[in-house]
Amino acid sequence: MVSGTCAIGIDLGGTKTAIGLVDGNGAVMRSLRRETNSGGGPSAVMDMIAGAVRELRKGAELNPVGIGVGVAGQIDAARGVVRFAPNLEWRNVSLGSALKEATGLPVAVTNDVRAAALGEWLFGAGKDCDDLLCVFVGTGIGGGIVAAGRMLGGCSNSAGEIGHITVDMKGPLCHCGKRGCLEALAGGWAIAQRAQDALILDPAGGAGLLGLAGGRVGNVTARLVAEAAHAGNSLAMKVMEEVAEALTAGAVSLVNALNPCRLILGGGVIQGAPELIGRIEEGVRYHALAAATESLKIMAASLGGDAGVVGAASLALQAFS
Amino acid sequence: MVSGTCAIGIDLGGTKTAIGLVDGNGAVMRSLRRETNSGGGPSAVMDMIAGAVRELRKGAELNPVGIGVGVAGQIDAARGVVRFAPNLEWRNVSLGSALKEATGLPVAVTNDVRAAALGEWLFGAGKDCDDLLCVFVGTGIGGGIVAAGRMLGGCSNSAGEIGHITVDMKGPLCHCGKRGCLEALAGGWAIAQRAQDALILDPAGGAGLLGLAGGRVGNVTARLVAEAAHAGNSLAMKVMEEVAEALTAGAVSLVNALNPCRLILGGGVIQGAPELIGRIEEGVRYHALAAATESLKIMAASLGGDAGVVGAASLALQAFS
Repeated sequence: MVSGTCAIGIDLGGTKTAIGLVDGNGAVMRSLRRETNSGGGPSAVMDMIAGAVRELRKGAELNPVGIGVGVAGQIDAARGVVRFAPNLEWRNVSLGSALKEATGLPVAVTNDVRAAALGEWLFGAGKDCDDLLCVFVGTGIGGGIVAAGRMLGGCSNSAGEIGHITVDMKGPLCHCGKRGCLEALAGGWAIAQRAQDALILDPAGGAGLLGLAGGRVGNVTARLVAEAAHAGNSLAMKVMEEVAEALTAGAVSLVNALNPCRLILGGGVIQGAPELIGRIEEGVRYHALAAATESLKIMAASLGGDAGVVGAASLALQAFS
Repeated sequence: MVSGTCAIGIDLGGTKTAIGLVDGNGAVMRSLRRETNSGGGPSAVMDMIAGAVRELRKGAELNPVGIGVGVAGQIDAARGVVRFAPNLEWRNVSLGSALKEATGLPVAVTNDVRAAALGEWLFGAGKDCDDLLCVFVGTGIGGGIVAAGRMLGGCSNSAGEIGHITVDMKGPLCHCGKRGCLEALAGGWAIAQRAQDALILDPAGGAGLLGLAGGRVGNVTARLVAEAAHAGNSLAMKVMEEVAEALTAGAVSLVNALNPCRLILGGGVIQGAPELIGRIEEGVRYHALAAATESLKIMAASLGGDAGVVGAASLALQAFS
């Protein structure tokens, strides 16, 4: 990638969209945030994006080579089609061609987590590494697998759905319908749900957490559980301990199966409870096979919330430079 | 790979070694089996191999381009060194250079399961497929991951250790020291152990199985458990049901994470209980993500016991043709 070129990266979420102008070194030169009016249907969202792209380009010194978009959903990358995006309630939306028409720029479409992993790989914690695994623990859990210098796509472009590896086959039900998925034990939604369930059984043990949630069990979020754990609340600490165990089991599985050089941990849950990284590292070093960990580094993602924008833009830089 | 060329493939196990002359189409032209005298140390094993190679070449029309060896253990492929092979009790044995000296042929060394996966990929059930996963369920469980047309090696050449993904984090201890590994629930050693444990608690329910084992609990093997289950023994059927559940959980994890086009199932346990393939397929279609299974085929390995020899030879054909 040549410095002096730039591209637009878009992280299109169900409620918010981030749009950035990113240079060939992965630096975000300028960026915007917009509400995603998913209720208005694809055309409202595309109008919003086209407007933001115009605004971003105004007065920019460099002309972007193209646009990359990361969308939370199943993507047909070859055709630029969003096959299914539950948060946006989109099915078979030709995002690539519509955005190209609206902006005059070539457009590459990918999955949002894949984009974030690409960002971390090319410009973040994964820089200069050919074999790595990015695990993003947010409301859900997803990731990206880079092997022998390539981001794995899989047979139908869904590789990296590591939130749905089974770590406890007799464990709680996941949204996907299966028992004991990593996400059902350690994703943000599961953390909130487990803490809420525990609070109903033991309000006294969770008094500190309940206080942070304004006294309403339904207000408990993963972020508040982490905060309460940091403040020493026993119920929250127990939930976070179980989260650490599940994440460790998942990380060990993936490290044993894939033998990455780096395991990169990011996402909102990790950002809110960064001590999880040390716990996971300790567990992986102890429990994974010696051969699989001898060259392994475990580290925090370094691009934070920008990973999606940077990764989406880098896709456009790769495709259109 | 050109027809008309051939290579020697060796599947070096702790008790037995298979050696074959394999042509450029993956066909075994002639083969030998030898006892592995692992008690005699590396030099005894290498003498045996060199002798077998001489015998194999006698009267062969084609001159092999080289030798490929698959060894159960950790391999430094670049240097041709067996770093650790527990069944052979080898540590840091320079197998490649020693065999080259003894035979005059160039030698490539790899892990035995990796070799078998390579064989299935190039000449067996994985032919003409660029994204696949081979799972071999034998005494242990291992596999090979092919993504975007490459066999994954990982950072320190240990990728594919799928027997040690966690499927039941509160489950039984594995030989590796971790709880609930796929292998600890569904590997041959675990099947035997679970059946033996169950027999001690319920000799009446396992009478049919105990009969097959000559009345001795300690003689129960995974093969006998499968036979007894086929004959309708309730205890054995229950054990095999749990094995199917564990294999399904593991297969779902790997299909979700890697999104292969083909899931290829082989190894002694699958050969002894081929009905497991249908059970796993049913479970994967039901429990894995729709996006991950829409293009997935699940099938039996097709090379049987020859996969290791064919794969090792194909490594030599690739490297030295």
